Amino acid sequence: MFLAAAAARTKHIRLGSAVTVLSSDDPIRVFQRFSTVDAISNGRAEVMLGRGSFIESFPLFGLDLADYEVLFEEKLELFDKARAQQPIRWEGRTRPAINGLSVYPPLEHHLLPAWIGVGGTPESVLRCAEYGYPIIFAIIGGQPRSFAPLANLYREAMAKYGHPMQQMATHSPGHIAETDEEAREEFFPHWLGLRNRLGAERGWGPGSRGEFDAMCTPEGALYVGSPETVAQKILLLKQNLGVDRFDLKYSSGTLPHKAMMRSIELFGTVVAPRVASLLDAAPTADLNLKE
Amino acid sequence: MFLAAAAARTKHIRLGSAVTVLSSDDPIRVFQRFSTVDAISNGRAEVMLGRGSFIESFPLFGLDLADYEVLFEEKLELFDKARAQQPIRWEGRTRPAINGLSVYPPLEHHLLPAWIGVGGTPESVLRCAEYGYPIIFAIIGGQPRSFAPLANLYREAMAKYGHPMQQMATHSPGHIAETDEEAREEFFPHWLGLRNRLGAERGWGPGSRGEFDAMCTPEGALYVGSPETVAQKILLLKQNLGVDRFDLKYSSGTLPHKAMMRSIELFGTVVAPRVASLLDAAPTADLNLKE
Repeated sequence: MFLAAAAARTKHIRLGSAVTVLSSDDPIRVFQRFSTVDAISNGRAEVMLGRGSFIESFPLFGLDLADYEVLFEEKLELFDKARAQQPIRWEGRTRPAINGLSVYPPLEHHLLPAWIGVGGTPESVLRCAEYGYPIIFAIIGGQPRSFAPLANLYREAMAKYGHPMQQMATHSPGHIAETDEEAREEFFPHWLGLRNRLGAERGWGPGSRGEFDAMCTPEGALYVGSPETVAQKILLLKQNLGVDRFDLKYSSGTLPHKAMMRSIELFGTVVAPRVASLLDAAPTADLNLKE
Repeated sequence: MFLAAAAARTKHIRLGSAVTVLSSDDPIRVFQRFSTVDAISNGRAEVMLGRGSFIESFPLFGLDLADYEVLFEEKLELFDKARAQQPIRWEGRTRPAINGLSVYPPLEHHLLPAWIGVGGTPESVLRCAEYGYPIIFAIIGGQPRSFAPLANLYREAMAKYGHPMQQMATHSPGHIAETDEEAREEFFPHWLGLRNRLGAERGWGPGSRGEFDAMCTPEGALYVGSPETVAQKILLLKQNLGVDRFDLKYSSGTLPHKAMMRSIELFGTVVAPRVASLLDAAPTADLNLKE
């Protein structure tokens, strides 16, 4: 719903989700919602489908966590058929069968761009490659570098399944300000608040400034700092994983609106052009892909 | 989705559906969508819930038409609980149970206005009164006057169930132009096209100009004519049924955009003020309510 509202107020930005929990939704409804956003936005919609790291929606819709795998597997299969815009023939055990029906509204502009959002499991990477979808890794902890084996697995599996290579992306939280110091000071209390709120629900134990600072180093998963720091960190991501795209998760709990808007502005006006020029200057960067 | 886009582009108009087929949807998802539109629009959302006159969505979601009654009955009960914004305890046979969970996003502005849309069955009127919801009658054929017994049934049932009286409305198709002649000529071919397309699916037999003209008379269900003709017809509706609100369905298949925009403009700038002044001049009109 929010994307439809954004579609009506914008002209250029792409409108995507991160992620749409397909497992606890109905694939036909998901397709209908995104094809509607695609129509309203003149072809700017994209959907990122995932199994869901948060599983609060499962009991609300009466789903059994024991079906975590089969729910996503089956629903992805059905979504893929709806997206192909042919009369659908499908049956499975997680949803009623469909016998030759079409889904409206039809896509007008193109095949709806659909990504699979994955955490760190090889099974998810293989399933994404089986369907030939572009992949986006959610890297919200640990080291981005450690996803290199999964990135290689995706490339190899896409080739094995005979699909042309698709885009590969990562998604991480971050915050940009004029200087590293300013970005960290501005971001830390809000990061800590959200971190501890989630931690309490998930049994992680309390976060600390030490943990935060480690995540802000070049090897960590937080893209926090000056435009130059964040640009260099994205370049490193390109060198280590060979990604085609980086998505910054810029909202973070109680972070004030003004700081967030400034961060978005710096990301678009300084970081993005800087990354482009760094990549132009280092065209052999992806020689290191398989290290 | 469309209402969310409209919410982002408008400031004053109310944003409602006509109707949301609750029977083939999930009441929690319906509540979530409309509470989101309500947030985006600063409290301008309303939902009209119905069983669905069109039943194309039933096989798509694996629903059995034999459950037509129980699906709406149970789903209305669950929707009503979600709307009350308390942790939900519910069980039934058409959807998994919910045991004490809350639904997000919460309503910020008010209790989401929710109407029940009914065709012509007394059972639907009684169910609406049982829940104490405002009622809207879809009058798309026959004579609006013939709905008087149902309007009286609603009033009596609301009193019997101990609910304060709620708004009563009707919804009919129509088209407004400068003169009766112009409105009819402009509207007829598009009405006929849509009428015959639906008729072919539903086995009605072909429509005709005679049928159309009869529906455009003061006693018919088409609100087609000059602003004065349509205003007088709405006044008649007030006198015959005692309605508080009239919704004009202004889209009709292939009717050109320009003619539709002109009709909307005349409806808002000429018809609505004229109805208001006619009602001011005839304050005793609803003395005839029970005839």
